[in-house]
Amino acid sequence: MNEEQVLERIERARRRKARVREDLITLAHGAGGKATRTLIEDVFLESFRNPLLEPLADGAVADGVAFTTDSYVVTPLFFPGGNIGDLAVNGTVNDLAMCGARPAYLSAAFILEEGFPVADLRRITGSMAEAAREAGVTIVTGDTKVVQRGKADGCYITTAGVGMVDPGVRLSASAAEPGDAIIVSGPIGDHGVTVMLARGGLDIEADLVSETAPLNGLTARLLGACGGGQVRCLRDATRGGVATVLNEVAEAARVAVVLDEEAIPVRPAVRGACELLGIDPLYVACEGRMVAVVDGRSAGAALDALRGHPLGAGAAVVGRIAEDPPGLVLLRTGFGGTRIVDVLVGDPLPRIC
Amino acid sequence: MNEEQVLERIERARRRKARVREDLITLAHGAGGKATRTLIEDVFLESFRNPLLEPLADGAVADGVAFTTDSYVVTPLFFPGGNIGDLAVNGTVNDLAMCGARPAYLSAAFILEEGFPVADLRRITGSMAEAAREAGVTIVTGDTKVVQRGKADGCYITTAGVGMVDPGVRLSASAAEPGDAIIVSGPIGDHGVTVMLARGGLDIEADLVSETAPLNGLTARLLGACGGGQVRCLRDATRGGVATVLNEVAEAARVAVVLDEEAIPVRPAVRGACELLGIDPLYVACEGRMVAVVDGRSAGAALDALRGHPLGAGAAVVGRIAEDPPGLVLLRTGFGGTRIVDVLVGDPLPRIC
Repeated sequence: MNEEQVLERIERARRRKARVREDLITLAHGAGGKATRTLIEDVFLESFRNPLLEPLADGAVADGVAFTTDSYVVTPLFFPGGNIGDLAVNGTVNDLAMCGARPAYLSAAFILEEGFPVADLRRITGSMAEAAREAGVTIVTGDTKVVQRGKADGCYITTAGVGMVDPGVRLSASAAEPGDAIIVSGPIGDHGVTVMLARGGLDIEADLVSETAPLNGLTARLLGACGGGQVRCLRDATRGGVATVLNEVAEAARVAVVLDEEAIPVRPAVRGACELLGIDPLYVACEGRMVAVVDGRSAGAALDALRGHPLGAGAAVVGRIAEDPPGLVLLRTGFGGTRIVDVLVGDPLPRIC
Repeated sequence: MNEEQVLERIERARRRKARVREDLITLAHGAGGKATRTLIEDVFLESFRNPLLEPLADGAVADGVAFTTDSYVVTPLFFPGGNIGDLAVNGTVNDLAMCGARPAYLSAAFILEEGFPVADLRRITGSMAEAAREAGVTIVTGDTKVVQRGKADGCYITTAGVGMVDPGVRLSASAAEPGDAIIVSGPIGDHGVTVMLARGGLDIEADLVSETAPLNGLTARLLGACGGGQVRCLRDATRGGVATVLNEVAEAARVAVVLDEEAIPVRPAVRGACELLGIDPLYVACEGRMVAVVDGRSAGAALDALRGHPLGAGAAVVGRIAEDPPGLVLLRTGFGGTRIVDVLVGDPLPRIC
């Protein structure tokens, strides 16, 4: 097959109606990649279909209010740089920020396993309180359930969030246009590799911490500097990593994403660990990094705005939007070649958030 | 000890600062009774304290918007009259309705266990869609996580909800006043007993189904008939049952709740099963029943309004608010005696919702 035939075959496969072919749920269904997408489209969207859900973005926006939710099942519960508690607050704050919203209120629902240490729970809620303070949000309502031993894994947390979207801010993956610049806000993959190494069992030592942080200050700065129209879309690169987010943009806008491998910031420790584990940093979850697609003419202003904030100090333009081939993410490698960065299949790093 | 000394001792115990004394989480911490309350006050409220969370109501209301969340861990997942899916939609719809809100948007976050049948998931999401339609709400955002076999129990669902509160509607357990009437919207305990019997293992047969249903139509009718001021507070009698809800009212308003045992509607099958199980129907969870505290002079109008709706056909005045003894719930028994209906201790029916 030549390149054109390959692209055609990929296109044909993607146009097929999503259909879950497995009888049983697998870990891949929770990995954020191809299987998750199929499950969402074939089961959840099929049942719940409505115009607000359909974009399948990080949250839904209606009447100037953004609304989002995420469950957190990370293991281990405590890892260098954070724990399930600040992750659950920052993750939902970030989903709201990616909608262009100012996060305001959070809910927190706990599923605890019988026998879970109360002292650990206090550490977790303490971190949540601190993360909420840092993000400027209030945890206003919650719930607690306890299940028998062996029916959970210590502690699961589900947060939901409500935020306000200023008039004129309208972000959407489908708004990406040829000529737009793709910016990441800092080095990628720290969170995923940190959690993976915290599980032990791998003989890799690395001086890494999760970058989990609230990004609403950074997004406010970016939107203030560039104006709503020039920022096409914001996504935090969690499960499935930067590669998954960019595939969603490419598909939604029917454009090509062309990445420059050498421009993508990856810490040497992350790169080294990924090489040993046989995974690509582009697919590794970040928890305090975002991908911004901005009008190419605003790329400089956007970069300045991001770099002026501590959480965006390592921001970089990593690629651009092109017309062809629509729906695909391409990577120009350091050796001058090009490869397709496809949607994630399987789950290299389960329960990373 | 005479009666006065007993009451004083209970009062003293209640005034003590809530403090979790256990090192490990127990099932009782999730039962909705005394241990849950202590955990919430000592851990969650202590960490997150703010004026919106402090009332510890079914949801929080700010700027005319109500916001609430609940996790669902019911076992079995399917039971006569419903499943975890419609339960998760109705429960959050009802929490919003109890805030006096018109439920509008729901989020749904799934934690699935590896190996869970996709066909079961489809049945659950189908029921959720139907329940959402019936309640007039839209599921606009969601999340899916998958955990390894043995790290969950098939499927857990966390829903959050956003609703709009009309100006002038202001419900609060602390608004209850001596002379107010206490109304339940129908027979109590069906849900809890149905789920208990669906687990099998008990040699009890009963023709019972869960009453899980969206109560927003019923609350809208009641608020329309009585006006905001005359309806003091609404609570759905879920975990911990009617007894727990009324204890919360008694404590929040520093009033006595005096119940008339013979007026409380309980189906013979529920009464029979409760007797065999050694539990009191007053503590059994309902999922489609509410307790309304209304101005005594509006009791007739409230009752008419409720009975005119299919979900309130069995509504009854079951007691009244009195001045003394503040903070307690008393039951006038059929034999002419009086007993204290205290807050639930332990968990007679774990994972009922």
